Order: sequence, then C-alpha cells, then structure tokens
Amino acid sequence: MEKVKIGVIGLGRLGMVHADHLVNLVSEADVKAVCALDQSQLDYAKKNFGVNTYTDYKEMIDTEDIDAVVIVTPTGFHPEMTTYALNAGKHVFCEKPVGLHLDEGVREMEAAIQAHPELTFQLGFMRRYDASYRHAKELVDNGKIGDIIYIRAYGIDPISGMESFTKFATDNDSGGIFVDMCIHDIDLIRWYTGKEPVQTWSLGNNIAAPQLEAIGEYETGVATLKFANGMVATLIGGRHAAHGNQVEMEIMGSNGWIRIAQEPEKDFVTLFTEAGVVRPSMQSFAERFEQAFINELKDFIHRVQTKQPGSVTMEDGIRALLIAEACKKSAETGELVKIG
Amino acid sequence: MEKVKIGVIGLGRLGMVHADHLVNLVSEADVKAVCALDQSQLDYAKKNFGVNTYTDYKEMIDTEDIDAVVIVTPTGFHPEMTTYALNAGKHVFCEKPVGLHLDEGVREMEAAIQAHPELTFQLGFMRRYDASYRHAKELVDNGKIGDIIYIRAYGIDPISGMESFTKFATDNDSGGIFVDMCIHDIDLIRWYTGKEPVQTWSLGNNIAAPQLEAIGEYETGVATLKFANGMVATLIGGRHAAHGNQVEMEIMGSNGWIRIAQEPEKDFVTLFTEAGVVRPSMQSFAERFEQAFINELKDFIHRVQTKQPGSVTMEDGIRALLIAEACKKSAETGELVKIG
Amino acid sequence: MEKVKIGVIGLGRLGMVHADHLVNLVSEADVKAVCALDQSQLDYAKKNFGVNTYTDYKEMIDTEDIDAVVIVTPTGFHPEMTTYALNAGKHVFCEKPVGLHLDEGVREMEAAIQAHPELTFQLGFMRRYDASYRHAKELVDNGKIGDIIYIRAYGIDPISGMESFTKFATDNDSGGIFVDMCIHDIDLIRWYTGKEPVQTWSLGNNIAAPQLEAIGEYETGVATLKFANGMVATLIGGRHAAHGNQVEMEIMGSNGWIRIAQEPEKDFVTLFTEAGVVRPSMQSFAERFEQAFINELKDFIHRVQTKQPGSVTMEDGIRALLIAEACKKSAETGELVKIG
Amino acid sequence: MEKVKIGVIGLGRLGMVHADHLVNLVSEADVKAVCALDQSQLDYAKKNFGVNTYTDYKEMIDTEDIDAVVIVTPTGFHPEMTTYALNAGKHVFCEKPVGLHLDEGVREMEAAIQAHPELTFQLGFMRRYDASYRHAKELVDNGKIGDIIYIRAYGIDPISGMESFTKFATDNDSGGIFVDMCIHDIDLIRWYTGKEPVQTWSLGNNIAAPQLEAIGEYETGVATLKFANGMVATLIGGRHAAHGNQVEMEIMGSNGWIRIAQEPEKDFVTLFTEAGVVRPSMQSFAERFEQAFINELKDFIHRVQTKQPGSVTMEDGIRALLIAEACKKSAETGELVKIG
Repeated sequence: MEKVKIGVIGLGRLGMVHADHLVNLVSEADVKAVCALDQSQLDYAKKNFGVNTYTDYKEMIDTEDIDAVVIVTPTGFHPEMTTYALNAGKHVFCEKPVGLHLDEGVREMEAAIQAHPELTFQLGFMRRYDASYRHAKELVDNGKIGDIIYIRAYGIDPISGMESFTKFATDNDSGGIFVDMCIHDIDLIRWYTGKEPVQTWSLGNNIAAPQLEAIGEYETGVATLKFANGMVATLIGGRHAAHGNQVEMEIMGSNGWIRIAQEPEKDFVTLFTEAGVVRPSMQSFAERFEQAFINELKDFIHRVQTKQPGSVTMEDGIRALLIAEACKKSAETGELVKIG
Repeated sequence: MEKVKIGVIGLGRLGMVHADHLVNLVSEADVKAVCALDQSQLDYAKKNFGVNTYTDYKEMIDTEDIDAVVIVTPTGFHPEMTTYALNAGKHVFCEKPVGLHLDEGVREMEAAIQAHPELTFQLGFMRRYDASYRHAKELVDNGKIGDIIYIRAYGIDPISGMESFTKFATDNDSGGIFVDMCIHDIDLIRWYTGKEPVQTWSLGNNIAAPQLEAIGEYETGVATLKFANGMVATLIGGRHAAHGNQVEMEIMGSNGWIRIAQEPEKDFVTLFTEAGVVRPSMQSFAERFEQAFINELKDFIHRVQTKQPGSVTMEDGIRALLIAEACKKSAETGELVKIG
Repeated sequence: MEKVKIGVIGLGRLGMVHADHLVNLVSEADVKAVCALDQSQLDYAKKNFGVNTYTDYKEMIDTEDIDAVVIVTPTGFHPEMTTYALNAGKHVFCEKPVGLHLDEGVREMEAAIQAHPELTFQLGFMRRYDASYRHAKELVDNGKIGDIIYIRAYGIDPISGMESFTKFATDNDSGGIFVDMCIHDIDLIRWYTGKEPVQTWSLGNNIAAPQLEAIGEYETGVATLKFANGMVATLIGGRHAAHGNQVEMEIMGSNGWIRIAQEPEKDFVTLFTEAGVVRPSMQSFAERFEQAFINELKDFIHRVQTKQPGSVTMEDGIRALLIAEACKKSAETGELVKIG
Repeated sequence: MEKVKIGVIGLGRLGMVHADHLVNLVSEADVKAVCALDQSQLDYAKKNFGVNTYTDYKEMIDTEDIDAVVIVTPTGFHPEMTTYALNAGKHVFCEKPVGLHLDEGVREMEAAIQAHPELTFQLGFMRRYDASYRHAKELVDNGKIGDIIYIRAYGIDPISGMESFTKFATDNDSGGIFVDMCIHDIDLIRWYTGKEPVQTWSLGNNIAAPQLEAIGEYETGVATLKFANGMVATLIGGRHAAHGNQVEMEIMGSNGWIRIAQEPEKDFVTLFTEAGVVRPSMQSFAERFEQAFINELKDFIHRVQTKQPGSVTMEDGIRALLIAEACKKSAETGELVKIG
C-alpha cells in the first residue's frame, strides 16, 4: 500500500509529539509539511523531520501534495481547520475536544464530515488505544464483570504543572476542568457502556488553588452523572496531585470490578526506604499514554489506506462535549442539569 | 479501679461478638447479665459467659446490680432502651445508628442524655477506633495532606450476604442503604473534616439485585455531598461485591492523599496462580473491624471508670442520621436536598 | 474447666508482653506469680497484674501453687529452667530457641521432657500461630501449589534497632544471626515441607555494620539449604532494613507460589505523596506477631487443660538448632557443611 | 547522518522481532537483507520488509552493501558468525550469550573484536536498556541505597512454555538453566555492582518437571554467589511459573532496597473478582522487554553512526559465561566452585 502523505497543523507540546511519532514510528506515514505560528517550532521540525513549513494552514493544505492533515491546535481552531481540510479533500485526524462550545462552528464541522463520507475523520480520544483500557473493554464486552452499576473516573494532573496551567488559562480559554480534562473520561464511559447520561449535578472548588478563582477556573471538579437505567458515574478532574498524574478508572459490575491504574506506577521499581514501601509515580499524561498516541495514529493511517471511517467519530466528540458542557453549567448554577 | 458491671441487651450477630469481647478481652468489664428474645442465644450466653439471662430489658435493668448497659438491638429499639437505662442511672453504650428516623423517640433519647451529664453515653461508630482510620486521622490533623478537597467512601458488602440481607430486609426496616450502610462513612467524614455537608444529590439502583425493588431497597446508593467551603464527598454503599467486603476511604488533600483499604487484604498472603497475582480479600466487616470493636468497648469502660463522657456523642449520631435521611430523601425524589 | 495457674519467668521485653497477654487476654490463664532479676520489672508486674514476685525461679516453682511456667529468659537459661520445672511437675511453655548450642544442658532438657509425658511442653515458635502463615500452611497441605520446589525466607530487622542490638550482643552471646534470627524460618520450612535439609553453604557479611566484626556477629547471613529430594531453601537474616521489619517468606510450588508479607504493611493506609505511592511499614516483630503470641499461649493453656502435648515439640527445637548451628559453622569455615 | 545498512542473520522468534523493530521502529536503520534457513521465514521477511534473502550468511555478508549485521541465531553459531562479519569489515550486534562454552571459538571471536577496534561490537543483554533496570541503576549509582549487601534475581518462565522448551532442548543444547536463563541476571549483577563473584554453590532440581531429567536439564536452578567483599547473590532460574513470566530482581543496600518487578504486572488493570484482588501477569519476556529490545538496537545503530564501541562488550559476555559455567559445574558436581 502507498504511504499516506501528511501535513501536521500545530506544533505545541502534543503537536510535536504527534509529528515525531508520525516521522519515526509510523512507517506508513510520510510527513510532508507542518504548520505552526512559532518560528522556532518550525525550525526544529524542518531540521529534525526534513519537512516543508508553513505559518498559514490554508496555504499548506492548498499547496502541498498531502492526503491527510493532523490537527493539534488549540481547541477553538478545530472546527474551522477540520472543515477547511475536508472541503479540500483531505482526511482529517483532529485532537479532542471538537470545540470549546457546541456552537455553529462545531455544527459546520459536523456537516462537513457528513458531506464527505469518502474521507476518513478521526477524533483524538487516545485512551481508547491504551492497552489497559482496551484490556478492560474486552473484559466488559465479554461479560466478565456482569452489568455495569457504577463508574468512577479520575483525571488529576500533578501539582507541578499548576504554574504553567495558570499561565495558560490566564491567556486562553482552557474550556474549564470538565471540558478540558473530564472529557476523556466522558468519552470512555460512553465507550464502555454504550449509554448516555441523562442528568448531572456537578461541583467545583479551588481549595488547593485559590488563585484560580480569579480566572474562572476550578482546580477540582466533581461531576455525578445519572443514566436512564439507574447507572451512576462520578468524574473527578483536578490539577493538585502531589504524587504525579492520576488517571484512574473503576468500573463496578454486578459480577466483579475493574480498576485501571489505581496507582500510577512509573515503572516496575519498588523502593523500600525510611518512608516505607514506595512505588514511584508517573508525572505526565504524555508518559502514561505514549503508546496510545502512537497506536491511534497508526490506526488512523491504516483506516485512510483502507478507506474506512475513523474509529472515534464526530458524534462521539459532540456527545462528549454536550455532557461536559452540562457539567460546567451545573457547576456554575449549582443546579441539576438535564443532558441531551 | 473497680470493674464496670455490665448488662448486654441484644445477642444477635454483633451482640454476641460484643458480649464475648466484654467477657474475654476487656479485663475491666464484668458482664453480669444479658437480655435477648431468643432462648438459644440466652442458653449459649449462660453456658459460655456464666451470666444471668433476661427476656425483658427493663427487668434486667431494674433487677441487676449493673453500672452500664450495652445496647445491640435492632435500630428501632435504640431510643427507648437508651432512655430507660439512663433514667435508671446506667451508663450506656449504644450501637449506631441512633434510630431509623429523626423522630420523637430520638429526641427523647437526646433529652435523656442531656439530663444525665453524670452518665457516660457512647455511640458505636467503631471505625473511629480502627488503627488505620486513626492513623489517617493523625495524618490529617497534623496537616500532612494539607486542606481536604474531596473524600470518597465505599461501604460495599460481599454478594455472598445478599440472600440473608434480602430475607432480613423483607422482614424488617433496614433503614435503607444510606441509613444502614453509609452512615459509618458519614460519621467518619464529619470526624476527619469537622465540617457538615449542606446539600446532597443521591441516587440508587438495583442493577445487581432487581429483587430488591420489591422491598423498597437500593442495592447500590451513591450520595454526592456538598460542603459550605466547596469540599465534596462521594459515598457509595452497596451489597454486590464479588471479591469480599470493600470498606474503603480516600481523602484527597491539597498536599497529598490518603487511601484506607484500597484493597481489602485478608492477611499478608499473596498468591501467584494461573489467574495472575492474587491478594485474597476479607469477607466480613466483623473480620475487618474486630480490633476496633474491642477497642471501643475498652475505651467506653475506661470512660465510665474515669467519669468521662463518651467519645462518640448523641450529637454525632443525630447529625449522621440527619445527613443519611437527606440522602435517602434525595434518592427517593430525584431532587437536590438541603441538609440541616 | 479450671483455669491454669501460671508462673512467668523472665520479664524482659517479650516476657512482659507474654505476662500482659496471659493476665488480660487469655481468660483461661490465672497468673499467680512472676520471677525476674530486675526489681522495677517486678514492681511493675505486682502493681499491674496483682501477682506475687520472685527473684529466684526455683523458689517460685517450689513455693507457689501453680500448674505451669512460662519461660521467657535469655536463651542460655532455657534448658536448666525447663528441666527444673518439669521435675517439679509443672507444665512448661518455653521460648525459642531451646538453647544456644546443642550441648549437654539441651540433652538433659530433652530427657526431662521425655521423662514427663504427662506434662505439656511447648516451644515458642509463634509464627506457626500467625494467621498468614496458617493460611499458607492450609494452602500447601491442600495441594494448592503442588510440590514445593524452593523456599525463600527473610528475617530482617529494622536498622533502628542496630544500636540496642549491638549493645546487647556486646554483653551477651546472641547466638548469632542464624541461631537468633533464622531459626524461626528454619522451623517454618520444616513445618511446611515435613523435610529436613541435608547440607548447607552459608555466608555472612557486615557491609552495613562494620562495627559488628569486633563482636563476632554478622549483620547479614545468607544460608542456602539443600534437601534430599532436590528442594532448595534460601534464608536471609539481617538487621539493616531502612523501612522496617521485613519478615517475608516465599514458597514456590510446581503449581503456584505463595508469598507471605512481601511488603510489611503497617495497616491499611496508603499514602500518595511527593515520594510516590507509599505503604508505611511495620517496625517491630512484636507489632507483626502480637496476635500470634496471644494465640500460642491460648493454645498452650488449652492443651494443658485437655492434657495434650504441646504443638511445637522439643524435637522441633533440637532440629532447628541443629540446622542453625550447621549454618553458623559453614559461615565460619567457608565450607559446605552436612546436616544431621 | 547516513542510515546504517543492516543484514539480519537468524529469523526465529527473536530474530523476527529484531528485524521488525529495525524496519519499522528504528528510523536510522535500513535493513537490506536477511538470512535464515527456513524458507517460510524468508518469504515472510521478503513480503513484509521488502528485503533481499539468503540462506548462507557468508554469501549475504560478501554480496550485500551493508554496514552491520545483527546476529540472532542459536548460541552455538555466535562465535563463527561474529568473527566472519568483523573480518569482512561489518559492525556486529550479537545476541547473548557469546557461546555455549568458553571454547576456542569464543576466544577467536574475542580476538577478532580486539583486532577491529574500528568496528562497533555490541552484545544483546537488553535488560540494561529496560526503563526499570535503568531507573534502578541510577538509584544505585547515586548512592540512594548505600552499599550493596545482597542481590536476589529470578528468571522464571511460565509453565505454558514447558512443552516447547522440552522439544527444543531435546533437539538442541540449550546451554542449561544457568547459561541460558541466569546469564541475564549475572550480567545485571556485574553491571550494578562492578564486582565479580569469586565462588559459587549451585543446585538444580526437576521437582516440577521430572521429564527434564532424561535430557540433562534442570527445570529450576539456584546459584549462590559469593563476592570478595562479602556481598552475596542468589540467582533462581526456572520454567515452572503458573502465573506468567517472573523476571524479578532485588538489590538490598545498607540504606534501602530496590525491587524490580516484584509482580509481573501485565498492564494497569486490577480485577476484583471472586478469587480476590487480581493483577494479571505478563506471559513472555518479549512482552516484558519489547521496549528494551528496541532501545538496544537504536543505541547500537547510533554507536555505529558515531563510531563508538558497543555499550555491552565481549568482556561482559565472557565474564557472564564464565560465571554461568561455574554454576553449571557446581550443580553437576555438588561442590563449591571457584570462579575466575
């Protein structure tokens, strides 16, 4: 099969990771060009990846002989870039979430995807490609834990990242704890259960980070989701973990439970020290999900080559955003909010 | 110091455990008499403990030369028995909860306690006497984890007990999952934080036990509690655990977290079998909290001897019940419920 | 049944623990007298246990109306005291090991035991009464792990005890790391397998405690034991653990493995801190084996009451000492040593 | 820098893994040709990797325009192939061990390496490239655990591989448990400590696999190694693990301990089932060390490009083999064996 020619839009932290993976670890991908606003990022990419560089994504799409674009820009740009690329006949891999709000731009993006069934569109909920989450999915789908009663999901960043987050969120609209952080778990819950929540009560606080009050962020967000069949889910998003990056999920079934990453073990090392028995923790999502990031791009490329739709759809993105926005609204108003 | 002469009321599962502990492991206690309705229980106690037996608790209180009573009867009897014993000049150790509802009987019990400051009254929230919970309390009080952001508490019984529970709850008012099970964790949360929740949204389901619908019970209950300072707690009560008895608590602080019993390790044995690496689980709360049950009675006896009030008060019992009833009401109505 | 009247000889650390257990937690025991050389220990016992006190064990045995003695003195005294007590018609519970060397005194003790089959003699290998070791024994005996291939046993004290040990071993003959520490595991290996080792190569070092060289002690001892059927065992004794008290055993079977206490969890608390995920460790064998110490005395008392021989025999004590001495000899000579 | 042109010799299980990694995941490698005896392996490689194929390794070396060869053949062929390749001016990556015996062929290989300092030679002790072992190395080198007192190393394959191993070892000389399995840990112990053992007592048994007697193999081997400074190491090699692939190492230091993979966690999933709390295990070394295999080849390629010697040397290979052969001799004779 022919390699898939790629243009990458966005070379921030995750964008550079994706570009590097595509160049070095996804043998069926052929990165031709990248687009970014920061010249040093472009210089780095030119030197290390040997690619053409652009500051205008439209120019890159219009000029380069590429089959697909990988969009890793700030969330607010996802709709217009996706729409433009699809209309230019390019396959699109777009980072999550689909947008900051379920607005017109997102609806246009949805329409563009529907208008181009011949193009592969895939959303970057990479956790679906992580070995542990997939192992759990297999167990759930094979009925190993019976019917799902309750799900608990934590997405809590290390406190060491607080300063850079505060800076980022002062300058940008992060989307807030539910749209920015919990959305991954919202997607996973939909994936595991095949069900949609119908109502939420969500709460937030800044006990660990009073400075976030001023910029309208919650350090910790807690969302309780009710499902039509009585199932319940609790989502905790946060940015205060002293020990590292706690991305944990628990699925309680009527016949057994699954926990994924109840401790964020960095590797196989256990220390026996004055403090007790210590398991060092992972510090970043990039470390935790490196292989998942590679896997999702490999699969996207394979789907482009074999003319299949993406595994994570626009519908997935819209539903997850709808739910996250309901959580946000509940936390803001203090009231129960119906979903959908 | 003189030993404390005791009468035990109630010889069901926990009553017999308490009586046995008092006779054999609490050297400052001198059990003189027991009261129960079941003749075989009385025969057993007479033979093994060498005590006088009664079927009428008032007769025991009026007749025997005892200093204190230990009340381990069904919850509905706690108020009248406590009131009667106090008015007869006896110290009282009473099992939790104080009652099934915050009704007149409970208010009379409260009044009797206030009317007898010379008598020791203690409520049986034994988890406060468990070594692990005390270790956590010390860490929290010493500021080791900073300010508390979020608490999660599980009290989930093994599925193996479902049949006997169903029978019990068919014949009796168990109080429901929040009043019967979660109340322990409600007490602990108050103990750890010194704070009262102000609002709850609670949910229940019978996905794992449809048969409970008919008797008005929830197999699983999920209560989200909001505190005035923004702190949040999630309580999960249930009766479906395949692996054993999961009584777990997590306290997230701004500077570290504590988990108590994230796995209910039965002992120090780890098995390496075809299934993987297996840690056998504890099956019952009696096994889990045996030492706590002994400790609370030792402390009660000591407080009687030294004329101190009980460590767990009627106020603790009333507040916990108030909160549990709010959860119950929320689950029944589907609405947010204000507390207190 | 009548209570068993007891005299306790020796009120050092473990002696006081045993006396306290007998007085407060073993309801069938009636401690009448204690014997010690230290007056403050005797005063403490008189005040707290209400017992008669002696400085001469023979006087206590000759004077007091007691059924049994519990011997908790330095090892060198075990033979003569046991012999004297048996000849005076007393049941004997004696701490391990039976002696420092397999000398005439030990042989006389053995003869006295054989001469008094009507008296209960039990040796203090308390680990056989620990819930986890018993759980493992049950699994082994029921064939759950198949045939035993290899056993690994650690008995490693916390470094915090090094100073007091050095002082003790400067003033006394501790027996050395194999006789003093590893002997517990030697007994357990015999108990689990029903087999005797036939040869050993043992080694010792003082890398962690050079000061022990001067007093002829090894801080760490490593004994490899060969059994006739090819089974192998490795014993590690030591006194250097930074984290706490590591008493661990692993039993590899042809169909599964068992590990007992692969981490010396202090309680159910897990901490999530800057260091990572931390499980605090137990610091002392007294903490680890408290319940086992109680259980062994309860069982001894019951065996006296029901005229049964002790569960751990003089033969067990002699075989364990024989093996430990072979390890010691191998470490001293650097050669392979045949056992038995 | 120019890509390194590679020829791979040997396409068995590990050979195919290496070839695949070189083609797809090591971007600086350019695999030109492969050599194997099995036509189906060659067909697979031709189709999937687009490379030239050979059945005669000398022909490949003489014909192809390659810079380096990667040798993944049965151990007995390592010396002659390495020698031939070096003499033809090729860089060599050779799987461990250097040979089955320290014979003339190995000495010729050593001489060839010394004769070609301009060529990079690297041996395949991949564990040195595993993240956990490297983490431990860093801790050791930074003095975090003080001086090393004792090391324990397990290399125990799952019982599920017994049948295929028996077949293999019937047809081939596996080298035996010490040369085939323990040699990895021998290398690691030398790497961590910088020290050489001076004496061993080694033992073997076939309790779990009596059928191995007939072919002169030990299912389980236990080697005790003594070092000049008193340090001791215990190596356990085996093929009987019910739960999976247990490759574990423990390093006891005077100021802390490190355990690497005390449980062979397959991923982040923990199951709570009727059996208890279960952590599924990894089943193969290929799964456990996949990233290490990739890393070592990346580093080898980088060293070729930058004209550096290999990180794991012929000296490392010879010393490890010497030690493994001493263990083997000790197990065969039942005697202590001096090393070196």
